[in-house]
Amino acid sequence: MKIGFIGLGRMGRNMALNLMLKRHEVVVYNRSVEKVNRLAGRGAIPAYSIKELAGQLPAKKVVFIMVTAGQAVDSIMDELLPLLSVGDVVIDAGNSHFEDSIRRSKNCRKKGVNFLDMGTSGGLEGARYGASLTIGGDFRTFKSLERTFRDLAVRNGYAHVGPSGAGHFAKMVHNGIEYALLEAYGEGFELLEKSKYKFDYAKISRVWSRGSVIRSWLTELAHDVFRRDPTLKEFKGVIGGGQTGQWTVRFARKQKIDVGAIAHALRKRKLSLKKRSFGTRVVAALRNEFGGHTEPE
Amino acid sequence: MKIGFIGLGRMGRNMALNLMLKRHEVVVYNRSVEKVNRLAGRGAIPAYSIKELAGQLPAKKVVFIMVTAGQAVDSIMDELLPLLSVGDVVIDAGNSHFEDSIRRSKNCRKKGVNFLDMGTSGGLEGARYGASLTIGGDFRTFKSLERTFRDLAVRNGYAHVGPSGAGHFAKMVHNGIEYALLEAYGEGFELLEKSKYKFDYAKISRVWSRGSVIRSWLTELAHDVFRRDPTLKEFKGVIGGGQTGQWTVRFARKQKIDVGAIAHALRKRKLSLKKRSFGTRVVAALRNEFGGHTEPE
Repeated sequence: MKIGFIGLGRMGRNMALNLMLKRHEVVVYNRSVEKVNRLAGRGAIPAYSIKELAGQLPAKKVVFIMVTAGQAVDSIMDELLPLLSVGDVVIDAGNSHFEDSIRRSKNCRKKGVNFLDMGTSGGLEGARYGASLTIGGDFRTFKSLERTFRDLAVRNGYAHVGPSGAGHFAKMVHNGIEYALLEAYGEGFELLEKSKYKFDYAKISRVWSRGSVIRSWLTELAHDVFRRDPTLKEFKGVIGGGQTGQWTVRFARKQKIDVGAIAHALRKRKLSLKKRSFGTRVVAALRNEFGGHTEPE
Repeated sequence: MKIGFIGLGRMGRNMALNLMLKRHEVVVYNRSVEKVNRLAGRGAIPAYSIKELAGQLPAKKVVFIMVTAGQAVDSIMDELLPLLSVGDVVIDAGNSHFEDSIRRSKNCRKKGVNFLDMGTSGGLEGARYGASLTIGGDFRTFKSLERTFRDLAVRNGYAHVGPSGAGHFAKMVHNGIEYALLEAYGEGFELLEKSKYKFDYAKISRVWSRGSVIRSWLTELAHDVFRRDPTLKEFKGVIGGGQTGQWTVRFARKQKIDVGAIAHALRKRKLSLKKRSFGTRVVAALRNEFGGHTEPE
């Protein structure tokens, strides 16, 4: 299939490469020409404007967008929507707020264009070799593109989870959980570090990754990190990001849901600009490991 | 090897069966005769007192203890230690406080008996087919029994982590992390439940188990639970247990470590006797799934 892909950051670039690996023709666009050219060098069809991208796609156009949530998505939609027509599909694969996705979907529907909101998880490795996808929007549109979602996802790693906004809502919650999981492991390694024992964290994270109740992808990543850098000297302990966690906590407050663990993780993340610890270094290291996120200066 | 095993609760019974599967001869004792007989029916050598158990073991006796932390361990040690002699080994496989383990180890050493503290994780399935083990105490004693630990553990799932107490300290921290992880997922599913969408939790937990950043054994167990009981109607939402979490938080306060996520999980667990939610039902269901823990009345 010939697919448009807008946004060639770390995640978008890897997803485009994954689509190409699955024998799709991918027309790629990014504001920075360099990123377009780099992917063209790997076999993608370059486009140097959104108009050029749309022009390269056959009828029943399919366009993925993977850019920073907020204004960037709206700018792209403003340019893209006039170039689309009945039956075309836009998939927002980024971390947009679910209410923005509902609004954008309504806008698209006025023109007969279908808009799906797709929560994408799995970090850089997932984007490249198989991600975890929660997809919201019109079910028939989802069905018509199911093969493409299967190509992007790890085996059994995608689902249509509800109407418009549901995919990004599930991703928002996923990220809230992620904050709290990172905080949990951070607290754990800090407890080990402040004990009188001289634990070998690579060893502990190896055992915790093998058959324990707390085993997870994150314990495996911790093992990889600690094997390379046993004391995390590469990390200051400043944790970036925070938007989706903020949204999660805000939603919880409105609905009077107690999300104390997520809220605590968010608070500590914000505080980490000033107040660092071995725990926040673990979190910064894990975020770097799965998503390539660097520490804010 | 011929091994003594004291304590045939859910975990102990499964570990004894696992040792038998690995061709060890296992002499079993439990206060309740019924549990001894039940395991004798599966090929274990029954003992109806600690004295009888010790009497059945050859020189260089090896005895595992897997009972509720606290007084029960001391009672057993009081009876067992006079029956042991230089070079014998006791392994406490339960959730004892690490300071108790240090004390018991010292007591044993006076008689030339070696005492290892072993944190055992992996729930009932792990106990039966391969657990995750953090072992503290004398390194040479650990080495001399390494084959047995390998037999009890999942592949690469055991390690000597430090001197006396280190194994149980690591397990205490493991449990603190476990509390916070459970709380994180509980909060997440409650957010989904309070949204305007009608999420299929079995589907969401399947996708989250496949390639996502938050994938873990717990998301897999959530998937199993939700497939059987989509609304968790089997659970009231009362979360039992709490001792190791309490210890973790107490240690953290003393060392001035911020463990807000773990502390929040502990608070909510205690509150769950009165205040329940979909989130606490998720936690109760997951604890039941991995450990067979039932809800307190």
